[in-house]
Amino acid sequence: MEIASGPSSRRHSGRLPHIHKVERPPKQNLLRDIQDSLKETFFSDEPLRPYKDQPGPRKFLLFLQHFFPILEWGRTYNLSKFKGDLIAGLTIASLCVPQDIAYAKLANLEPQYGLYSSFVPPLIYAFMGSSRDIAIGPVAVVSLLLGTLLQNEIPDSQANKLAYRRLAFTATFFAGITQFALGFFRLGFLIDFLSHAAIVGFMAGAAVTIALQQLKGLLGIKNFTKKTDIVSVMRSVWSAAHHGWNWQTMVIGLSFLAFLLFTKYIGKKNKKFFWVAAIAPLSSVVIATFFVGITHAEKQGVSIVRHIDRGINPSSFHEIHWTGEFLLKGLRIGVVAGMVALTEAVAIGRTFAAMKDYQLDGNKEMVALGSMNIVGSMTSCYVATGSFSRSAVNFMAGCKTAVSNIVMSCVVLLTLVLITPLFKYTPNAVLASIIIAAVVGLVDIGAVILLWKIDKFDFVACMGAFFGVIFKSVEIGLLIAVAISFAKILLQVTRPRTALLGKLPGTNVYRNVEQYSNATTVPGILIIRVDSAIYFSNSNYIKERILRWLGNEEEEAKKLNQSGIQFIVIEMSPVTDIDTSGIHSFEELHKTLQNRELQLVLANPAPIVIEKLYESKFVNLIGEDNIFLSVADAVTTLTPKTQEPA
Amino acid sequence: MEIASGPSSRRHSGRLPHIHKVERPPKQNLLRDIQDSLKETFFSDEPLRPYKDQPGPRKFLLFLQHFFPILEWGRTYNLSKFKGDLIAGLTIASLCVPQDIAYAKLANLEPQYGLYSSFVPPLIYAFMGSSRDIAIGPVAVVSLLLGTLLQNEIPDSQANKLAYRRLAFTATFFAGITQFALGFFRLGFLIDFLSHAAIVGFMAGAAVTIALQQLKGLLGIKNFTKKTDIVSVMRSVWSAAHHGWNWQTMVIGLSFLAFLLFTKYIGKKNKKFFWVAAIAPLSSVVIATFFVGITHAEKQGVSIVRHIDRGINPSSFHEIHWTGEFLLKGLRIGVVAGMVALTEAVAIGRTFAAMKDYQLDGNKEMVALGSMNIVGSMTSCYVATGSFSRSAVNFMAGCKTAVSNIVMSCVVLLTLVLITPLFKYTPNAVLASIIIAAVVGLVDIGAVILLWKIDKFDFVACMGAFFGVIFKSVEIGLLIAVAISFAKILLQVTRPRTALLGKLPGTNVYRNVEQYSNATTVPGILIIRVDSAIYFSNSNYIKERILRWLGNEEEEAKKLNQSGIQFIVIEMSPVTDIDTSGIHSFEELHKTLQNRELQLVLANPAPIVIEKLYESKFVNLIGEDNIFLSVADAVTTLTPKTQEPA
Repeated sequence: MEIASGPSSRRHSGRLPHIHKVERPPKQNLLRDIQDSLKETFFSDEPLRPYKDQPGPRKFLLFLQHFFPILEWGRTYNLSKFKGDLIAGLTIASLCVPQDIAYAKLANLEPQYGLYSSFVPPLIYAFMGSSRDIAIGPVAVVSLLLGTLLQNEIPDSQANKLAYRRLAFTATFFAGITQFALGFFRLGFLIDFLSHAAIVGFMAGAAVTIALQQLKGLLGIKNFTKKTDIVSVMRSVWSAAHHGWNWQTMVIGLSFLAFLLFTKYIGKKNKKFFWVAAIAPLSSVVIATFFVGITHAEKQGVSIVRHIDRGINPSSFHEIHWTGEFLLKGLRIGVVAGMVALTEAVAIGRTFAAMKDYQLDGNKEMVALGSMNIVGSMTSCYVATGSFSRSAVNFMAGCKTAVSNIVMSCVVLLTLVLITPLFKYTPNAVLASIIIAAVVGLVDIGAVILLWKIDKFDFVACMGAFFGVIFKSVEIGLLIAVAISFAKILLQVTRPRTALLGKLPGTNVYRNVEQYSNATTVPGILIIRVDSAIYFSNSNYIKERILRWLGNEEEEAKKLNQSGIQFIVIEMSPVTDIDTSGIHSFEELHKTLQNRELQLVLANPAPIVIEKLYESKFVNLIGEDNIFLSVADAVTTLTPKTQEPA
Repeated sequence: MEIASGPSSRRHSGRLPHIHKVERPPKQNLLRDIQDSLKETFFSDEPLRPYKDQPGPRKFLLFLQHFFPILEWGRTYNLSKFKGDLIAGLTIASLCVPQDIAYAKLANLEPQYGLYSSFVPPLIYAFMGSSRDIAIGPVAVVSLLLGTLLQNEIPDSQANKLAYRRLAFTATFFAGITQFALGFFRLGFLIDFLSHAAIVGFMAGAAVTIALQQLKGLLGIKNFTKKTDIVSVMRSVWSAAHHGWNWQTMVIGLSFLAFLLFTKYIGKKNKKFFWVAAIAPLSSVVIATFFVGITHAEKQGVSIVRHIDRGINPSSFHEIHWTGEFLLKGLRIGVVAGMVALTEAVAIGRTFAAMKDYQLDGNKEMVALGSMNIVGSMTSCYVATGSFSRSAVNFMAGCKTAVSNIVMSCVVLLTLVLITPLFKYTPNAVLASIIIAAVVGLVDIGAVILLWKIDKFDFVACMGAFFGVIFKSVEIGLLIAVAISFAKILLQVTRPRTALLGKLPGTNVYRNVEQYSNATTVPGILIIRVDSAIYFSNSNYIKERILRWLGNEEEEAKKLNQSGIQFIVIEMSPVTDIDTSGIHSFEELHKTLQNRELQLVLANPAPIVIEKLYESKFVNLIGEDNIFLSVADAVTTLTPKTQEPA
């Protein structure tokens, strides 16, 4: 309710209160105007602000700190923080080693490439990244996406190992370039175009697809489809049912799956026991490997890892395609994989930053992620990003800074140098069960229910992405997700809401009559609120919608034998901008109303709108007197005219 | 200014006024909800409204009238209306005959096809269309576009006349299908996505391109480039300068061009003489033809029309490609040409409808235009649509109904049957000068200046389309126009405006402090208005922008030694909708503010927003007490707390 003490007396004395006119904002020159709008688009976070009024050397230090945040937080680093980081780092290392080996298989790469990708990228990130909680490394969804896209180009990854790997590094390089460029050119806002709803659906679909792929390892099937859609996979599974399933493999796989899901459940039930879930995968690998090693179950058809290259990352600089058609293919795959990886990492970073209340600079973050993948592509790593599950464990284990990533990286280094031969007897079934247990968390039923409750359109987008992924492929799902996200934006700007306003009794506040049942319309005056910027995409609709409101109300008035409408007041508060098409429509509306002897009145136009209305001479057309500061103001001024006989 | 009489006393008595709570709108069931939103998207004009409460036979009549508006207005047609239509029809006929012959050349078709397209389509339109002023027939821009697109597929239109023509009819058929389908499925709003600014630029670019093409005919150049970009054309013209220009042709062309431009100027200067400009083209043709006929200037190298088939439209049903790859090519070309033709026709229709104050049903109009092109494609016509210049002449000549199109159609019929042989000696130079004089009007300098003044982004879109057309090709220009239009929409939803609000002295109205210089902020309370629906594309930006406002204000407060901010009031009036991402961001914002011991307060959320805030339990999170009906309400309630020591 808006109330005033002063002017109420003035109105009753018969004087029409016009203390405040709608002001035109101070005129800015063009250059300033363009500058401001560019700044708000690309530099909305004012990155140069800390540099202001600083001496030269200090500026250089700030500049270095901008790209290497470790220089900033490193100076206040102490032993107590290190304790937290050490424990968190060891915990996520125990989680990441088995996951790395498993995820590399999702990307159709040999297991050591997963480990490589958990060694170099986290190190780079620790120096350049600004998130304190994110855990870097290969993740399930990106591995699957990369594997699918690469396989489209090189169908037989086993027969063409080198060619496949080279394309993978090329794609990783361009994924890094994409991420770096988006951050460097401050285009980070582009990833906001993938809506939350679409991501939820895409992730769930990817999780189901990944889990289905694991049926191969879990059931010990030899001839498995290369396709990822649910129909092909289930057909593969059934056709192998009679002789293709290996019961020893199934026993191993299903029992460890049950164990992992159980520990996950315990960890979820009681947050104190999160470490049980965290070390379960490594324990499973150790137990299963030991078991297979002594029973030699591999001779019964249980498929095992067999071999992981020992030693740290070899250089892969010369394996990247710097020319030729594979450069372009790598570029295309890299852009897609890079964007998806970025979306995941930024979402994780933001979530944890909000939890601990620190600011995360999205563009800086992208530069860090891009750099780590560029370096990674030259050191035999494939696309790494922030992992949902490992970041959550990192957070719960009490990490303080990115040092936990360094600790994890060191453990992976030791693993690579010392113990890779021990993974020889690790059964693939246990890796499959680790993957399934990991991706279960990506299906967020709660979020889907919330989408359904809050926004049906979001729900449709979510389901579209989900079914696109499981029935077709990850790319199609992604495409559907992006398309639906865009459709939503377009629909929003094409069919904006309008509302009929009425006066709340005892106040001078005008509100939507559909929301406030006791709001009453003013006889002779039609008050309509337009709830959107008026642009070419909706200007015509808005014009016709206003005329439709008018038609309805005139019909209503005729039925009730009331006097007809004489004024149309457009409440412009929500109209944040108007373009030439919008002004055109207003001119047409004014002409139409004039023909019917109705007056168009505007209330509370925004600064930019009033400026444009003046520039286009529309103000002269309807008369400056017909623009009011508020609806209340307009109604008090207009009412007398309708009551007088004139 | 919003003022109240009643409650002001209540406030001073110390009671916090809470007469009106923010109400949740009455709950609608899901089906109803979806129905409403579908209805608003596709049936916003309530097409079924007139059918309500009507008896059966009347319903059928209304249904017929819906598709054939002539049944409605025909019943009140009388002689005085016919007089107007007759004069207007004869005037536009005199204008269209020479234009038809000239435009057919733009589309690389033989001259009679231009005349055919001015015979059948206007007849069909007269029965089905609802615009009273539009003049139907071939137009310059669509002819050029069609010519370019067809030539991309069949480069040598002279050597492959039949193949070229068949593809032209196929494209025309699909242009009609596209138009019909858009109207029938009520997707007409899709053409609104081509912004006014983009159309202005595209039209101007097309006009320049068309004029440049006419240099061939005007200068009598034999070897002319097939490309349409300005660089190729000018190179063609210069390289032909020494021996390729024909002076006799130039004399004819330039003198008639001067004559036509002069009459055009007279017609514009004094509206009474519009008919001078209208009959000038036909007079030019008659004079030039007569002159060439007696001097036999064609023997001096003056190129002439030579031959136009006599007789009415032959059937072309069997020339349309119903199968094969040309079907797909025709489909692609048809969709583009159909959309551009539609945009032009609908823009014309709307302009004149607003002038004479009648409603134009966009979807019905599209069905009419589509039908006429479908029938046209089977009767040797190429894509016809509404012509800007001829419709204006039609309007000024006093047309009353679509009967003027029937009159024009009859004149074209007589031309086809009787006098086509007389066009034998018509020099191409005079046709070129007619085209140039016609397209000059498409360059709307005034509109461009207005764009520059009102909206810089629109100006850039306009220039992009313009330069795209003249330096590259019509398709590229069109693509740029569409791309920039979309970019504008996306930018609008990614970077919405926010404003800091202050109180206008002597009122309880809160307005943007940048617009109203005397608005003052309230100490301890930060009031921010968010000027857009909060969607995934901007939710993160809005959150960060609010935190930035907070940072700035806290700095300011520290400098002035004021007490810090305790409340953040978000004025939600312009926030017309919120989605799950938006609620997410609000939750994060709330968490961040909570960490800093600040309270988040919302003012005046819209019905749909409050509903979603309840559904998502966000209301519970910040407390129902922190949602107010208006900013004024919030400030009066919150202020006491900040003053008390607690």
